[in-house]
Amino acid sequence: MQADTAKPYSAINLAEKFELFSEKWLPKVVAELNDYQFKIVRIEGDFVWHDHPETDEAFIVLDGELRIDFRDGAVLLKAGEMFVVPKGVEHKPFAEKEVKLLLIEPRGVLNTGHAGGERTARNDVWI
Amino acid sequence: MQADTAKPYSAINLAEKFELFSEKWLPKVVAELNDYQFKIVRIEGDFVWHDHPETDEAFIVLDGELRIDFRDGAVLLKAGEMFVVPKGVEHKPFAEKEVKLLLIEPRGVLNTGHAGGERTARNDVWI
Repeated sequence: MQADTAKPYSAINLAEKFELFSEKWLPKVVAELNDYQFKIVRIEGDFVWHDHPETDEAFIVLDGELRIDFRDGAVLLKAGEMFVVPKGVEHKPFAEKEVKLLLIEPRGVLNTGHAGGERTARNDVWI
Repeated sequence: MQADTAKPYSAINLAEKFELFSEKWLPKVVAELNDYQFKIVRIEGDFVWHDHPETDEAFIVLDGELRIDFRDGAVLLKAGEMFVVPKGVEHKPFAEKEVKLLLIEPRGVLNTGHAGGERTARNDVWI
């Protein structure tokens, strides 16, 4: 666990964490649970098609509306809704307007899986 | 994954899931992420002191206010706030009024750890 998250007994306020940055597509780690991380991210527009061959990935929408496209369908998520993308399933997140997400996945997972490209964010950035 | 959660591409609406039950202290699984589970639970009043020697445990408050007592302090969590109790740390959740929580922890973790008692809930109940 990082030094700045080691303060015991402080609530993690997700809305306040979002006030600390405005850039999109760059997930920030807010907490760890064993070898899993909770990341917050703002996204708007189209992501790249990718999958995570080694892990499921959980999306919780905190504000706004997220669509996750699959090769054979899509799911629409509003605030207060969640979805777990199974490992190995190709998906492409999309948000017409900015959406605030909480992601849960194992430490070390890249946002673009193995797809690469300009959307690939630096990993393990804490806020 | 359970049959009733295997429908692809359906959002999990946490508020709607809470409308399906009113009893307190009985966590219900709403999703799995690898070998982790997302559980929703209503609690009100005092829980028992316990710890989970083998795992951290994440609490996200969806509605209401939760206090988690530790042997040497406490943390107060409001809606939109989260906290991860480190493995092996004794804690006792408390809610003066009913609070709705989302818990994330490995499959198989009992709500009372190894403390037992009447608050121990049947595990792996899906909703």
